[in-house]
Amino acid sequence: MLKEGDLILLYKDPQRNYLLKVENKKFHTDKGFIDLSSLKNKDIGQNIETNLGEKFYILTPSLWDIIMKIERKTQIIYPKDIGIILLKSNLFPGARVIECGSGSGGIALALANFIRPGGKVFSYERNKEFLENARKNVKKAQLEDYVEFKLKEVKERFDEEDIDSVIIDIGSPWELIPASLQALKPGGRFATICPTFEQLTQTVFSLEKAGFTQIETLEVLTRRILVRRGKTRPEQRIPSHTGFLVFASKVI
Amino acid sequence: MLKEGDLILLYKDPQRNYLLKVENKKFHTDKGFIDLSSLKNKDIGQNIETNLGEKFYILTPSLWDIIMKIERKTQIIYPKDIGIILLKSNLFPGARVIECGSGSGGIALALANFIRPGGKVFSYERNKEFLENARKNVKKAQLEDYVEFKLKEVKERFDEEDIDSVIIDIGSPWELIPASLQALKPGGRFATICPTFEQLTQTVFSLEKAGFTQIETLEVLTRRILVRRGKTRPEQRIPSHTGFLVFASKVI
Amino acid sequence: MLKEGDLILLYKDPQRNYLLKVENKKFHTDKGFIDLSSLKNKDIGQNIETNLGEKFYILTPSLWDIIMKIERKTQIIYPKDIGIILLKSNLFPGARVIECGSGSGGIALALANFIRPGGKVFSYERNKEFLENARKNVKKAQLEDYVEFKLKEVKERFDEEDIDSVIIDIGSPWELIPASLQALKPGGRFATICPTFEQLTQTVFSLEKAGFTQIETLEVLTRRILVRRGKTRPEQRIPSHTGFLVFASKVI
Amino acid sequence: MLKEGDLILLYKDPQRNYLLKVENKKFHTDKGFIDLSSLKNKDIGQNIETNLGEKFYILTPSLWDIIMKIERKTQIIYPKDIGIILLKSNLFPGARVIECGSGSGGIALALANFIRPGGKVFSYERNKEFLENARKNVKKAQLEDYVEFKLKEVKERFDEEDIDSVIIDIGSPWELIPASLQALKPGGRFATICPTFEQLTQTVFSLEKAGFTQIETLEVLTRRILVRRGKTRPEQRIPSHTGFLVFASKVI
Repeated sequence: MLKEGDLILLYKDPQRNYLLKVENKKFHTDKGFIDLSSLKNKDIGQNIETNLGEKFYILTPSLWDIIMKIERKTQIIYPKDIGIILLKSNLFPGARVIECGSGSGGIALALANFIRPGGKVFSYERNKEFLENARKNVKKAQLEDYVEFKLKEVKERFDEEDIDSVIIDIGSPWELIPASLQALKPGGRFATICPTFEQLTQTVFSLEKAGFTQIETLEVLTRRILVRRGKTRPEQRIPSHTGFLVFASKVI
Repeated sequence: MLKEGDLILLYKDPQRNYLLKVENKKFHTDKGFIDLSSLKNKDIGQNIETNLGEKFYILTPSLWDIIMKIERKTQIIYPKDIGIILLKSNLFPGARVIECGSGSGGIALALANFIRPGGKVFSYERNKEFLENARKNVKKAQLEDYVEFKLKEVKERFDEEDIDSVIIDIGSPWELIPASLQALKPGGRFATICPTFEQLTQTVFSLEKAGFTQIETLEVLTRRILVRRGKTRPEQRIPSHTGFLVFASKVI
Repeated sequence: MLKEGDLILLYKDPQRNYLLKVENKKFHTDKGFIDLSSLKNKDIGQNIETNLGEKFYILTPSLWDIIMKIERKTQIIYPKDIGIILLKSNLFPGARVIECGSGSGGIALALANFIRPGGKVFSYERNKEFLENARKNVKKAQLEDYVEFKLKEVKERFDEEDIDSVIIDIGSPWELIPASLQALKPGGRFATICPTFEQLTQTVFSLEKAGFTQIETLEVLTRRILVRRGKTRPEQRIPSHTGFLVFASKVI
Repeated sequence: MLKEGDLILLYKDPQRNYLLKVENKKFHTDKGFIDLSSLKNKDIGQNIETNLGEKFYILTPSLWDIIMKIERKTQIIYPKDIGIILLKSNLFPGARVIECGSGSGGIALALANFIRPGGKVFSYERNKEFLENARKNVKKAQLEDYVEFKLKEVKERFDEEDIDSVIIDIGSPWELIPASLQALKPGGRFATICPTFEQLTQTVFSLEKAGFTQIETLEVLTRRILVRRGKTRPEQRIPSHTGFLVFASKVI
């Protein structure tokens, strides 16, 4: 049975699906409303009807769903990019990871999911409003035990050492390369995302200068295929650019 | 200090990097050889010289590196696709996951990394040679405690129930939809990869018929950017198609 | 000097540019209006001011501009696809080409531009409203002498023979394969665009059955790069799918 | 009937197809040889057998085929990019166009095809070997009457004025912007291709400084779809980058 505070995806179709908490509240859709407290008599996988008799499924949201549906105060990093970061960084249950800045918390909660229970995400953010929003989003995903938020503008160094991975998501990532170098353990992995070519080249050249190795850049595109009887086709518009992902390894 | 059996990435440049174990063996490169047992006096992040005095770095391989460099007896699933699967499935430390077939073990070891320590990957494969190779690759990545390999051709059902995620990688994924439905917990996630359009449509229509919801298909492209002073450009050829990824959620 | 009826592109910036004729009319923009008859005192390459003193350039529209800005009654074929068709068909000054259906006239005018002065485009359309709109667009581009529009639903055969290239843009292109075969000269080229996979496979298999050779399918993506000092990046959303282009050659 | 010197595409399948002239020569394939002089008894669209009885079709090569199969002494510009150039430039039968450098002649012959009979391509090349090869390729395509090759390193100005379009394909396109500006008629179009980001930004900023307007950059990707019964899929590797195309319009 679901209980107060549980996170669910209320799903009808690709256009109508909502990330919600079980709580005493009515939730309105164009197909009628649902009393979210009535979810307490339900289980994941069941369906629930609006007052107009329209069925919605109660699903476990994937990380992808959560990241795409968190409350945004900033540009978010897309799941397509986070998926690549998960495989190109040193991440595992128990890993200790630094993230800067927190943004809307999307990366923090993806990282938190995969480093728990023994690991920790240290998430730095200088903007209080962003940090509080990121904290709220991580809490909504019930991952707050694995993220330590820090309201701080990092200049010279992070508070931590011996870190497995650093993920930087600020406008001038090269400024945090010395701090990242110091925080990372030998062999530790650096990752960042650069929306523009100028950010990209400055970041890569700064990584080279700082002595990082295995420096690599890639961009990721995803395209949905709409599979429908007799009229299957790729979707007609896609996000074609979020940023260039840069990865590097610390050596001694 | 490194010890016998540890997995490392020996890295010189994008063309010269090797996934190796610390063991009593000489490893030959076009820049001379390295006695792998001498790695025992070294740490991750340090470098080591070949007999010809050429430096290589000793790095922690990322999952991406490992998947791309395991011994292949089959077509592998690329990390770009696995990254998306990680975010679109229900995966977390403690998750119980079924994979079929094992292939070369690339998916199994990626899953194993993220469900440990409390979770388990049940990996089914009907071809003994493939299974043994997959097992060897998972063992090389030191993740064998989290994968249970099963030499078995699944037809009607898997041995497990109450499973968080099922990942199918066989030529006719639709044949395993009933077995997947039975094994998954309500809200559990189904994922598969279909190289051809015909496999894709048959899989999606079978998922619809079996009552799955939140069915979605996407394809992923990655392109490396070669950042070099005064001559930065995208790489000239890329893998443009591996398969279409299909995801779905089980409902009651 | 420009004269009555001339076609121009009135250009201020990527968002503000308009395909216009020199005529006695006021044209309103968010930067004020321009009296289009005053263009008669101007030349291509000069600028003209609105009543609010805002400068717009008077340019020769490229075919790309014209196709993107014609009045649309139907889905158009994008210039990115037409560019490929130009190189994959048999087109040259003097070529005789069949097009079916006329759509909004975008293909017709591109073809007309390149087969003039000795060639002819025979453009079939069964919908009178579409045909009249296509004719208007071709006339606006001053290419009406090179296109013969035919209000007719083709079933069994086209009126022409010994044709260099046939371009089919209807929902069921396979239905016009026999008619195309008959109209084409030996070695003549067939081209069509299929939005869905099912249309694609049915078309290709029908071409094979009809004895066409050199059958080939491709899709085209274009992505704009926004070059701006210190913040150069690809555009963030692109059209990712219009249709699959199919080409084939008639043999005896 | 075919005659001495005619250009044909000898086509068996996607791997076996050859651009050939009718001449007194034997042509060898892995399926036996063909005496090319025996083509004189044949017509386009017929087939011909090798000495081993294998059939090949005699086809009209499309411009795409010709460009991909000319003898290369340089990196060529791909048809996918030329298709875009055709629509983004001012090209039509009668147009006068400058190209620099000639490269292997691929652009020259595409332009020549579409500006004939009244137009002319002025093709500049400083390397004699390249120019002779380009000339040979254009002659093979029987378009030599429409191209004037000039062995010359252009610095300050081209010989022509009042030109409709300029297409630059050299490593430092910005050096030819002043010469292009002078040669173009008002409203004339400038096009170039830049393999690297640094070339791209320097070119665009130079165009801005020189007073060009309607400056635009895009990149083009094409992907073949292999349509085969029960196993239709996109090709597995594609050329992912040739260069960034830059276009601009001259104003007074």
